[in-house]
Amino acid sequence: MASTAGPNSTDGREGRPTLTVVGATGAVGAVLRDLLSTRLDVYGEIRLVASPRSAGRTLTVRGEPSEVVPLGPEVFDGADIAIFAVPPPVAAEWAPVAAARGTVVVDASPVFRTSPGVPLVVPEVNPERVRDRPRGIIASPGCPTLSMIVAIGALHHRYGLRELVVSSYQAASGAGRSGIETLYAQMEKVGGDRALGNRAGDVRGAVGEFGPFPAPLAMNVVPWTGSLGADGWTSDELGIRDETRKVLRLPALKVAATCVRVPVTKAHSLSVHAVFGDRVEQREAQAILAGSPGVVLCDNPESHEFPTPADVVGTDPTWAGRVRCSLDDPKALELFLCGDSLRKGAALNAAQIAELIATEL
Amino acid sequence: MASTAGPNSTDGREGRPTLTVVGATGAVGAVLRDLLSTRLDVYGEIRLVASPRSAGRTLTVRGEPSEVVPLGPEVFDGADIAIFAVPPPVAAEWAPVAAARGTVVVDASPVFRTSPGVPLVVPEVNPERVRDRPRGIIASPGCPTLSMIVAIGALHHRYGLRELVVSSYQAASGAGRSGIETLYAQMEKVGGDRALGNRAGDVRGAVGEFGPFPAPLAMNVVPWTGSLGADGWTSDELGIRDETRKVLRLPALKVAATCVRVPVTKAHSLSVHAVFGDRVEQREAQAILAGSPGVVLCDNPESHEFPTPADVVGTDPTWAGRVRCSLDDPKALELFLCGDSLRKGAALNAAQIAELIATEL
Ligand SMILES: NC(=O)c1ccc[n+]([C@@H]2O[C@H](COP(=O)([O-])OP(=O)(O)OC[C@H]3O[C@@H](n4cnc5c(N)ncnc54)[C@H](OP(=O)(O)O)[C@@H]3O)[C@@H](O)[C@H]2O)c1
Ligand SMILES: NC(=O)c1ccc[n+]([C@@H]2O[C@H](COP(=O)([O-])OP(=O)(O)OC[C@H]3O[C@@H](n4cnc5c(N)ncnc54)[C@H](OP(=O)(O)O)[C@@H]3O)[C@@H](O)[C@H]2O)c1
Repeated sequence: MASTAGPNSTDGREGRPTLTVVGATGAVGAVLRDLLSTRLDVYGEIRLVASPRSAGRTLTVRGEPSEVVPLGPEVFDGADIAIFAVPPPVAAEWAPVAAARGTVVVDASPVFRTSPGVPLVVPEVNPERVRDRPRGIIASPGCPTLSMIVAIGALHHRYGLRELVVSSYQAASGAGRSGIETLYAQMEKVGGDRALGNRAGDVRGAVGEFGPFPAPLAMNVVPWTGSLGADGWTSDELGIRDETRKVLRLPALKVAATCVRVPVTKAHSLSVHAVFGDRVEQREAQAILAGSPGVVLCDNPESHEFPTPADVVGTDPTWAGRVRCSLDDPKALELFLCGDSLRKGAALNAAQIAELIATEL
Repeated sequence: MASTAGPNSTDGREGRPTLTVVGATGAVGAVLRDLLSTRLDVYGEIRLVASPRSAGRTLTVRGEPSEVVPLGPEVFDGADIAIFAVPPPVAAEWAPVAAARGTVVVDASPVFRTSPGVPLVVPEVNPERVRDRPRGIIASPGCPTLSMIVAIGALHHRYGLRELVVSSYQAASGAGRSGIETLYAQMEKVGGDRALGNRAGDVRGAVGEFGPFPAPLAMNVVPWTGSLGADGWTSDELGIRDETRKVLRLPALKVAATCVRVPVTKAHSLSVHAVFGDRVEQREAQAILAGSPGVVLCDNPESHEFPTPADVVGTDPTWAGRVRCSLDDPKALELFLCGDSLRKGAALNAAQIAELIATEL
């Protein structure tokens, strides 16, 4: 017998925490609604919030229609937890408002990730950190960091991480709904046109709008994601360094990242060169990855088994493959990781953090 | 007044060396014919050779029609130089046949790259090595190596290279004509279909034939190029290590490469982390690259200037950008390089080597 209780109803959900989802209409918000729909016994009321542009729209969560309400202080009244999946300026303004009203904020934006007094949490790696939140805000790392940190954390636990060199293959989704839409529109324009891809700039002239990207993405790769940081580094590249240091509590970790956008819809990939304090061994490293919750080992190149973004999109775990010991350094390991940027890379990690709070309440 | 001499004619070309192009119909061969057409005063006769499948076809070189002849010992009769752009087994069998007849062989295949007695030559880096060819064969490096070696060689000259960590973004063209054709056919199938790219495996089911690739390439990246080497490394990854060591004469250079195919037609990109013996300085490194023949610096991220494969395809140089000093190691530099895999990555380097021989004759 199906429950007749709507998502905002508390019938049979008395005593369970109330959750506000800010940014429920976005790329991350849509996946959050999917994930919440598979966890029926966690929350009481769930409120869907977005900008005034979306107010009044009806969305589905837990299989039931729910009206989107515009962001305002009242959306946090009586809310135990709020997940924020909104642009940075909106998070910067409204997360403190929610926290001041006693709502525990889980923020997916970059705003608070490196702020003192705000824990940066990956539940498989440092779940205990959620308890230490003097500002009432908990941050979730960026999608490139989240695409590797569970796997790297497991290896660090055994070998002691010293240095990372990371090159990313990031999907359009990292730039939100408009990123995904731009890639599809460009792919539609170029199709399989054999007149393109032979002369410098012909793709640039053919793809139409660049959307949130600084160069064409279809039939191309773009060595730039995020905004401009110091000395030519991008915010995503600095984020991978700062966030990995904070999550793993390794303030002196050496990290060099290069972030590159590729014409893939939603799953990020990372090529990682990791140097450890101890000697690494290929079979043992593979076994560690295979045995880590949240990681799937997919590493049998003889039979063409390695993770690719098209094969892992829509799934929760981090997929690890191409695990090799360096030929020149007994303490270095190479690996290739893939994961859905909207799931573990954003919505899933935020939902996991929120659930840690929900069960603690 | 246009010359009336055909490509096989020696009218006005007396005394100039005869060149045989083996594999004139392939992806590399087509670019070789283009390049030879811009160098009218170098060769006397030019013979176009391919498999018996192509015998009798008429191709153009130096603006004039020329009939393709099938590969046999006689194509080397009186030939001073032969450029080989054929699959490895064909090169392995026929390069020694040509050399035994006194023809200097320039081979683009992987077969002889690490063979003793065969110099591995990049004219901007080690042109003097062409003279030391006891077996009559000179090898040209693989396209991933050629996409970086001119830029890295220039930096090595100043700073003394110690270690490379490389992640590649390799184009379909690295797998020859069938690679390029497979990518276009897959792009045609997926177009901008918004039903694809959301669920694991949906792209795999939609792209049609994989061609020479072990997984779908459209809307995907494939962390595998080349064949399976030892301990999970690919032949391309080992090639980057072995070839860089040989060209730069650094037998103990530490190299860790991860080779990844991306849905781009013809230009390769590489993310490079280079560690040197000396401290590096960003502006100086940029100036070194900008001043190196064969390299173009494209590095002004504030105004979205960085190399992308779609913007450099069809051009000769290596394009360098995203030059940054490591934040954690004063001797490490990050950079992003792009170059056409069929030009400097194959045909141009082979043509440059052949020209060094031609002018020495
Ligand atoms: N995409 C990823 O892979 C990813 C990964 C990790 C973290 N993040 C972070 O997650 C956040 C959301 O990213 P996204 O990709 O989901 O972006 P998106 O697709 O552009 O969605 C933005 C969301 O924010 C809402 N919003 C915008 N302005 C608002 C306002 N003034 N008041 C209330 N709501 C407002 C939008 O509502 P309307 O529909 O009403 O405009 C929409 O729900 C960003 O901070 C991003 O950095 C994203
Ligand atoms: N593609 C690159 O980016 C790249 C870069 C560096 C080096 N290379 C190397 O260059 C070589 C050629 O590559 P490609 O990409 O040009 O390959 P491709 O497009 O497949 O062309 C192969 C060429 O070899 C000819 N051929 C095949 N079997 C032959 C035989 N039995 N006798 C005579 N000719 C034969 C083909 O002639 P038909 O047309 O008659 O079959 C064609 O001209 C390979 O060794 C490759 O490793 C390629």
